[in-house]
Amino acid sequence: MTKQKTRKFSPLQRNLHTIIFEADTPKGKLFDIILLVFIALSILVVNLDSVPSISSKYSTILFYAEWILTIFFTLEYTFRLYCSYRPMKYVFSMYGIIDLLAILPSYLSLFMAGAHSLIIIRALRLLRVFRIFKMVGFMNQGTFIMNSLKASRDKIFIFVFFIFLMVNIMGAIMYLVEGTSNSGFDSIPRSIYWAVVTMTTVGYGDISPTTNLGQFLAAVVMILGYAVIAVPTGIVSAEMVNQGKKKHEITSQSCMSCTAQGHDVDAEYCKY
Amino acid sequence: MTKQKTRKFSPLQRNLHTIIFEADTPKGKLFDIILLVFIALSILVVNLDSVPSISSKYSTILFYAEWILTIFFTLEYTFRLYCSYRPMKYVFSMYGIIDLLAILPSYLSLFMAGAHSLIIIRALRLLRVFRIFKMVGFMNQGTFIMNSLKASRDKIFIFVFFIFLMVNIMGAIMYLVEGTSNSGFDSIPRSIYWAVVTMTTVGYGDISPTTNLGQFLAAVVMILGYAVIAVPTGIVSAEMVNQGKKKHEITSQSCMSCTAQGHDVDAEYCKY
Amino acid sequence: MTKQKTRKFSPLQRNLHTIIFEADTPKGKLFDIILLVFIALSILVVNLDSVPSISSKYSTILFYAEWILTIFFTLEYTFRLYCSYRPMKYVFSMYGIIDLLAILPSYLSLFMAGAHSLIIIRALRLLRVFRIFKMVGFMNQGTFIMNSLKASRDKIFIFVFFIFLMVNIMGAIMYLVEGTSNSGFDSIPRSIYWAVVTMTTVGYGDISPTTNLGQFLAAVVMILGYAVIAVPTGIVSAEMVNQGKKKHEITSQSCMSCTAQGHDVDAEYCKY
Amino acid sequence: MTKQKTRKFSPLQRNLHTIIFEADTPKGKLFDIILLVFIALSILVVNLDSVPSISSKYSTILFYAEWILTIFFTLEYTFRLYCSYRPMKYVFSMYGIIDLLAILPSYLSLFMAGAHSLIIIRALRLLRVFRIFKMVGFMNQGTFIMNSLKASRDKIFIFVFFIFLMVNIMGAIMYLVEGTSNSGFDSIPRSIYWAVVTMTTVGYGDISPTTNLGQFLAAVVMILGYAVIAVPTGIVSAEMVNQGKKKHEITSQSCMSCTAQGHDVDAEYCKY
Repeated sequence: MTKQKTRKFSPLQRNLHTIIFEADTPKGKLFDIILLVFIALSILVVNLDSVPSISSKYSTILFYAEWILTIFFTLEYTFRLYCSYRPMKYVFSMYGIIDLLAILPSYLSLFMAGAHSLIIIRALRLLRVFRIFKMVGFMNQGTFIMNSLKASRDKIFIFVFFIFLMVNIMGAIMYLVEGTSNSGFDSIPRSIYWAVVTMTTVGYGDISPTTNLGQFLAAVVMILGYAVIAVPTGIVSAEMVNQGKKKHEITSQSCMSCTAQGHDVDAEYCKY
Repeated sequence: MTKQKTRKFSPLQRNLHTIIFEADTPKGKLFDIILLVFIALSILVVNLDSVPSISSKYSTILFYAEWILTIFFTLEYTFRLYCSYRPMKYVFSMYGIIDLLAILPSYLSLFMAGAHSLIIIRALRLLRVFRIFKMVGFMNQGTFIMNSLKASRDKIFIFVFFIFLMVNIMGAIMYLVEGTSNSGFDSIPRSIYWAVVTMTTVGYGDISPTTNLGQFLAAVVMILGYAVIAVPTGIVSAEMVNQGKKKHEITSQSCMSCTAQGHDVDAEYCKY
Repeated sequence: MTKQKTRKFSPLQRNLHTIIFEADTPKGKLFDIILLVFIALSILVVNLDSVPSISSKYSTILFYAEWILTIFFTLEYTFRLYCSYRPMKYVFSMYGIIDLLAILPSYLSLFMAGAHSLIIIRALRLLRVFRIFKMVGFMNQGTFIMNSLKASRDKIFIFVFFIFLMVNIMGAIMYLVEGTSNSGFDSIPRSIYWAVVTMTTVGYGDISPTTNLGQFLAAVVMILGYAVIAVPTGIVSAEMVNQGKKKHEITSQSCMSCTAQGHDVDAEYCKY
Repeated sequence: MTKQKTRKFSPLQRNLHTIIFEADTPKGKLFDIILLVFIALSILVVNLDSVPSISSKYSTILFYAEWILTIFFTLEYTFRLYCSYRPMKYVFSMYGIIDLLAILPSYLSLFMAGAHSLIIIRALRLLRVFRIFKMVGFMNQGTFIMNSLKASRDKIFIFVFFIFLMVNIMGAIMYLVEGTSNSGFDSIPRSIYWAVVTMTTVGYGDISPTTNLGQFLAAVVMILGYAVIAVPTGIVSAEMVNQGKKKHEITSQSCMSCTAQGHDVDAEYCKY
């Protein structure tokens, strides 16, 4: 995307650019892999750091580990700024923002406690893994999923909207039915929480009906949810079946005669 | 739908009608949006009002907020009656009924406690949001889902009927097996409740088998339910794949030759 | 199916036969509906009878209700024997067996307690409802589902077999990991029960891992189960999409030219 | 696969080979069935052995039963080595490794406790059941599933990768929100465990949010997971629909004219 402008740059910048921004050179790939390892490491550190038993023992090691990683990431970020052809474009790109968010928490943690745990945002940096996937041809699989989801976005939205209505109504009803008995339905919001837990078939059981009427209504809700769970799946499935065909059609725009049609239908099927 | 009769009406009524009933004029749209905000507000109020900690603090504010909204909705309702071309038609339309149900509870609450919480019915009024969706072309997505569900209505019904049979039988069996041990299977209805909770993979755990035989049967039920959950999803998915094609076929009734057929197949796919 | 032999029968038998066995005459339909009501009633009775609070109050009423229904069903059964053209054929037909099983428990309960609750088998008699559905054209929907399931029977079987293997292995592993800590994994069968509860996403929580390793393994199992749950659904969905097409193909065997093909493709879609 | 080399072998070996390695002769089939029975038995033994109440009573019987089975399996393994045409090939084949793993634990248990339970690995030997399935034509059903899964492998992988990212982020957030309140979110790894339990709709309830914010976030996560669960199912469904068509296309490569196309489309549908 930025090939045509490389001329204007110092050799150093150009080399750095190839290493940092392009994953299709051996060096670039190596850099990406090292980067991913460091990201994985930093996630591990945050996780371990949050486990009381471990953090108490190895607090210092974890402390240093985190700061070393943070500094490394900070340097990486500055280098990216330095050698990118349009720094601003990078800063406001998805990756740019994630990269920044991945460093800030550590520095924030100097002033405010807790912020520290936000370092987990670094997990998002793992998205870079897709730059390597790109070479393994994983991306079009990813885009396939994304397209299917985009295509069914509206439907899913409407669906979620209905769910929202249902859980509201059901929450209120269950609040009326179960509110008095001490079974956790002590406010409508909490009853709505229960409704969501039930509709999605998660069913913690932290809140569950105890009265006969309550249990009957709950059963109805579940059967409903059971039929309802079919909808989003149906939407996406149908979309993916279409996507599959669409892909094929695009790849065989040229064919005109019905027989040919017949053939590249084979073609499609053999592709998959 | 009622355009041809507008002549007979006073200008005021006509203007009101355009504002209140038609969402495709700027004024009409504005009105709908304000309305939705108020509906959302009233839902929020009911929710907050049910949270002990909040209601104790802000009871008066919430009380007034609710009554102001109720009065607004009452006025809106009367206006709708006043300026609709066929008042009766509106009254008995889905929206008309919902609008009425949305006001009543507040007035009922004057005489009987609890009725108050029914105000949540107002959530249903959010369905009006679809009048705005109409302009964003969301509706045909919605109708797509509805059609798919209508088309698979019978199948779903039969399916639910079988579920009903199964949970009855299983409930009775589990009652025989677990009834004696204090694991909550203390009546067939309750065992049926358990069966529903299990078949739908909600699994609260408020009632769960403790005897070996009971757990074995439960496991069988789950594996069954696991295979069974596939049915409604399958039904809806298949229906949606068909719907997708159907839609296309309708849009390309004119085409006659096989090649053309081939092309608007492309067309269809490009549409999606 | 038995029309050709009706001549040999007494008018009484013939009338009874029309009433009891044929649902497409007004009388026959009425009989079926009454029958269903009675079946529903008897199920209700068994359910209520099992609820301590109710059975204690209304024990006598429930007792008589049950016996009246039992006698009615016994008479019905004998009548069926009397007026069916091939009694043996009826006795060993699915319905015949269900009808018998539906009466026996009451009589058994005279000699052995508990057997009583088996009366719930009567729920199965509700299958007769399909004789009425037949007139509403529900049946081909039912057969559609059955065909899809039959067609995917083998696949589902293999799938269930794999699940069986997986839960065995996982159960044993979790037993090794969690067995010592008091988290309910106190035997392999119980751990297998847990594995089923988890794989099917039921998740009672009556048994759940407490050790870190256990929770990690459980998480892996869930992600696995999450991907696995897709399989049966996929199988059935695909089968139903095929079924849908198949049905169409059968109905349009005659068409030969590609254009015609094009058209009755429309036809199909319009059908759905 | 090894027919052409049989000449070089002693009759004994050849007979043994036919019995042990070929399931399509009566003897071979009998052998396989006996083998499966023994495998099932040994699994049963391990299971029973782990149940305290049973193992205490029948420890000796179980002990001997296990060793008899182990010896039988050891003999079988050696025989396989003796009469296979390429012993090394067998040893490193999937079945060969499983067969070995199935014997080792018993011997290991002589030196180290616990290893004993690993005998459950024998469950894997049940995979041999497919050798018998082969004759019932189950295999192509199995391969159908495998192909579908292989075809959607990449997609599933990307999907799981996203889940991994999401549970990491969500786990950290919930740790920040719920960490202080004693609701089980006492470390990020544990919160991640909760996130997995929730996303997969398992929902044990051993860890569940208690704060309002926590419950709100959890509800969002569930709705998300509810939409997300559609993805793998959609992928596999779409894949299976394609697989179904593909299969057909392969079987009807010869057809060239559009009409013929039309027909073997019937053919396909009639096949299913």
